[in-house]
Amino acid sequence: MFKKIAIFGVGLIGGSFALALKKAQVVQHVVGIGRSSSSLLRAQQLGIIDSIATSTSISVAIQDADLILLAAPVAQTANILAAIAPHLQPHTIVTDAGSTKNDVIAAARLALGEKITQFVPAHPIAGREMHGPEAALADLYQGKKTVITPLPENSPQSIETVSAAWGHCGAIIHQLTPEQHDGVFAAVSHLPHLLAYALVDEIANKPHADVLFQYAASGFRDFTRIAGSSPEMWRDISLANQAALLVELDAYMAQLATLRTLLANGDGPGLQALYANAQQARQAWGRAIEAVEK
Amino acid sequence: MFKKIAIFGVGLIGGSFALALKKAQVVQHVVGIGRSSSSLLRAQQLGIIDSIATSTSISVAIQDADLILLAAPVAQTANILAAIAPHLQPHTIVTDAGSTKNDVIAAARLALGEKITQFVPAHPIAGREMHGPEAALADLYQGKKTVITPLPENSPQSIETVSAAWGHCGAIIHQLTPEQHDGVFAAVSHLPHLLAYALVDEIANKPHADVLFQYAASGFRDFTRIAGSSPEMWRDISLANQAALLVELDAYMAQLATLRTLLANGDGPGLQALYANAQQARQAWGRAIEAVEK
Repeated sequence: MFKKIAIFGVGLIGGSFALALKKAQVVQHVVGIGRSSSSLLRAQQLGIIDSIATSTSISVAIQDADLILLAAPVAQTANILAAIAPHLQPHTIVTDAGSTKNDVIAAARLALGEKITQFVPAHPIAGREMHGPEAALADLYQGKKTVITPLPENSPQSIETVSAAWGHCGAIIHQLTPEQHDGVFAAVSHLPHLLAYALVDEIANKPHADVLFQYAASGFRDFTRIAGSSPEMWRDISLANQAALLVELDAYMAQLATLRTLLANGDGPGLQALYANAQQARQAWGRAIEAVEK
Repeated sequence: MFKKIAIFGVGLIGGSFALALKKAQVVQHVVGIGRSSSSLLRAQQLGIIDSIATSTSISVAIQDADLILLAAPVAQTANILAAIAPHLQPHTIVTDAGSTKNDVIAAARLALGEKITQFVPAHPIAGREMHGPEAALADLYQGKKTVITPLPENSPQSIETVSAAWGHCGAIIHQLTPEQHDGVFAAVSHLPHLLAYALVDEIANKPHADVLFQYAASGFRDFTRIAGSSPEMWRDISLANQAALLVELDAYMAQLATLRTLLANGDGPGLQALYANAQQARQAWGRAIEAVEK
């Protein structure tokens, strides 16, 4: 049972965390902290949070908190960490919900100093197209993965506190090192976003873009869906995970060069072998995902 | 009204064409021709075709046909054209349903000689994951585009015959030159397939592929859905549209090189501008498509 949880950013991610813990009846009081007072008021009206704190009342808001969740846009993470550091009590655990981990950990080490022991990084793998307090759902994390990337300095108890909180949200807890995490998500999430943005930007910049878009159909629709995502958020993720994303991008560009050679040589068996390997893997993955989601 | 239509390949594409024209009551007799006698028998049982012809009875089957549709796998197109050429009567119009046009036209010129006037190339933009006669639907083409790419040798009447047939299927008729067609579909369909296959093949070949696939989520699912398509079919399309596809692949690789520079330089405003341009174009396209489909 958590007596008090403080949440920075009460939109989709932070709001859903609060609603889930309230539904599980494992938290007595949730205080919301953020830059937009209208969002905070709306979150309070919706029963997501019980009280509101502003940047001037952070010290009071967090001093008796068991857990602090950083769920504001990642660009604010360093500032929030700097603001809470002087007031952080030894019994309070801090966690986050960012899509990248190495950059958040570096910022946390800088801001928290010796209190880094209290920071347990995490990444819930869930989302929806909408955002803001109205988009928050008590079951957003139900059956979804949350990846925790513990630090060597974390105590087993602090890791358990964060695992338990996400477990109460219905999430399946995974552990990776921060490096593993950032490499994995560079490959299966960040690179596909970059590739989809690249294709749509390129087509949109062609002189006959209107003709091209006119004949784009369902394959194009699915392939480019993620190019409709927030440019600011994906700029931040791209820069935050720059090193791992460059590794994946270079590997993909080398792969395209290989494929180009097969195509230019008219190598039918070579193209078919590559396509068939991909088809098999994609279908096996699809079946595995469906089995889990059933 | 068509007295007789001959269809090579009575699967999803050819079968749906037959069902649509029967539903519109504009055809008296449909003869099915193909290599699989079980498919032909099934198509007859399902009421898709009225009679069956084999390779030895082609001359009889097509001699009184008003229209011949080539809907077998594109790899068979040259052989089918060669088989029908000697028996093709002057009043019979031939059309096809291939995803690429320049290669089919080259094969048709070779096989048909002076009878090329009777060949009006077309490409219905419709499909579904299933195939075979059971997958055929009378409304598969309803509200979908069919692109006709007439030849300079085609008479206005022969173009009108093919347009009318697809129009009776409920399709919206577009006209492009064969070169325009192949360029457009290289950009908005063939390249995305190649890119999706490339990504899944690359991930599947990594030593930690199982870990990567474990964390792939909905963005990856949509981006790679087309990598589940038939490797044989996409090998054929890639080779058939080799020239246009190489142009698009080279443009995309140059675009990735630009994006890589932005990322390596940590150029936040540059990344955001590219992502934002893509997002705007993708959202505008999405709204336009939804408006048409409503």
